[in-house]
Amino acid sequence: MYLGIDIGGTTTKMGLADSSGTFYSENSFNTTSYSNVNQFLSALEGEIIRMVSLMGNQLQGIGVGAPSLNYHTGIIENAANLGWKGQLNIKGHLETFMNCPVMVTNDANLPAIGEMIYGGAQVMRDFVTVSLGTGLGCGIVSNGKLVGGHHGMAGELGHINVKPNGRQCGCGRKGCLETYVSATGLKRTAFKLMADYNGGQSELEEYSFEELNAEIITEAALRKDKVAVEAFQYTGRILGMKLADLLLITDPEAIFLVGGMARAGDLLFEPTLKSLTESRLDSYESNVEILPSKLPLDKVSLLGACGLIAHGDKPNKNSKHITILDRKPY
Amino acid sequence: MYLGIDIGGTTTKMGLADSSGTFYSENSFNTTSYSNVNQFLSALEGEIIRMVSLMGNQLQGIGVGAPSLNYHTGIIENAANLGWKGQLNIKGHLETFMNCPVMVTNDANLPAIGEMIYGGAQVMRDFVTVSLGTGLGCGIVSNGKLVGGHHGMAGELGHINVKPNGRQCGCGRKGCLETYVSATGLKRTAFKLMADYNGGQSELEEYSFEELNAEIITEAALRKDKVAVEAFQYTGRILGMKLADLLLITDPEAIFLVGGMARAGDLLFEPTLKSLTESRLDSYESNVEILPSKLPLDKVSLLGACGLIAHGDKPNKNSKHITILDRKPY
Repeated sequence: MYLGIDIGGTTTKMGLADSSGTFYSENSFNTTSYSNVNQFLSALEGEIIRMVSLMGNQLQGIGVGAPSLNYHTGIIENAANLGWKGQLNIKGHLETFMNCPVMVTNDANLPAIGEMIYGGAQVMRDFVTVSLGTGLGCGIVSNGKLVGGHHGMAGELGHINVKPNGRQCGCGRKGCLETYVSATGLKRTAFKLMADYNGGQSELEEYSFEELNAEIITEAALRKDKVAVEAFQYTGRILGMKLADLLLITDPEAIFLVGGMARAGDLLFEPTLKSLTESRLDSYESNVEILPSKLPLDKVSLLGACGLIAHGDKPNKNSKHITILDRKPY
Repeated sequence: MYLGIDIGGTTTKMGLADSSGTFYSENSFNTTSYSNVNQFLSALEGEIIRMVSLMGNQLQGIGVGAPSLNYHTGIIENAANLGWKGQLNIKGHLETFMNCPVMVTNDANLPAIGEMIYGGAQVMRDFVTVSLGTGLGCGIVSNGKLVGGHHGMAGELGHINVKPNGRQCGCGRKGCLETYVSATGLKRTAFKLMADYNGGQSELEEYSFEELNAEIITEAALRKDKVAVEAFQYTGRILGMKLADLLLITDPEAIFLVGGMARAGDLLFEPTLKSLTESRLDSYESNVEILPSKLPLDKVSLLGACGLIAHGDKPNKNSKHITILDRKPY
């Protein structure tokens, strides 16, 4: 049995699964309830003990994904989207605490690992996942391996600049892609549109900034609410333009759109594909697919964390990739 | 003995070298003198025969790089920077013509292969080369292998959009990076600046558009000519911004700036590094190097073509990379 842990900006999800990706037990808790690294770590270790104690089998390993988690060092380094600052050597702590192998990666890579081992990318060697949640994460697979980068920080597509002096980002800069293209970005766009229209146009006008979220906007858009539909079009237009850049750089077979916002389906996929097509070189026409996940959207990342530890450093029989991550001395 | 061929937008370079990268004979001819694919191919084959006939040894193989050359198929597909349109199966033609192994790749990858086998990247696993010549080429190495992409078209950084409705590009679109950042882009920038200033500011005012080139602008900039210096600053500012995006996506250990324009040295490197530093996330500070090539600038690509065929599908003893290119069925 393997334990997968997906530490997100809002929620930390945990799941015990076998190597085929079947979950036997799942759990989650609020990441933002803890004001510092040590409180969070204590809470996490408590949850691990609780889950593992209910299990008859031996725990064979733990796979962890978190924002700004460096797979070379095993350290979470000042993540822009986590409430607490400072460094956390989560790999070292959990290896000592549970006395079992621990593999870690940037959370943006979890959906890519999930799709590669259990999902729609099992026979692909070059693909990309873009995950739209609190932020925007991106996992890139080339030649059948994750593009990890020299510092384990590749795939930070969410922080490429869209607009000089644009929206304030949690990373400290302005105009990052994820301030426009993410669940949070969608809400900000809806508020900008309401500011432009000055009322009388949308059911979203009854919500405060604290109340509004991507689910409410999606529901309104499905009812053809003007502001909600335009917010998705604006989001898709920017996403498509930046996916065009990503295609030019990495030339994938497919791009998987995952994360909570991918539930909006055509509301998001159609304007994204339209914008992407308009931005592309002729020679790429119709050669890349924008695909939804083949896995349950709320489980893609958790399956990635389980798959990382169950298959991450072994030949992967499903997809014939040799290994997902190279583990080299740092 | 191996033959390397670097088909560029202006010049086609050829070199006979041993596996250590020592050239025994070199040659070049004008790519643009031929109005169609077949004329070019006949000229190329004539030059090959001429070079090889002077050589005592057996030719062990040919390595070829060209714009829009797909390493999966061996075909040059409507290159934006080559005068002639249509497709050319250069791998197939040369294999038949010379009866020896031929390995091919996009010309943007040649400097990366050259640096990896013979140059400054021999001990690197994750790095990028950006080549500034007629256009802008980019070679990306991740986990010790070239990021080739599903269609063999990765690394087309030169065609990411910098400015909507910006300068006309040879690819048919507007505002591509290489219309600003390349030898050609530098000249266009100098002309734009002269248009802004309306005379009396620069020695470049005596040149026609046909006459002016990057070498003349570099010479003028070294004499602190206002327009020439500003043209380099403008070029470096845009390059630095887009390298910041590339860093976020691929997280390399180093970026090598190569190609003719890299001869300008600090004129180009300083504004590029300044702009890059201003655009970066804190966590990347001082962790990436912008490096000049360790190889003679006019030979980097040709050495890449020779290295590709001499070492491309074998374990690389220098750098411990397994293979440079994966050759998979297409």
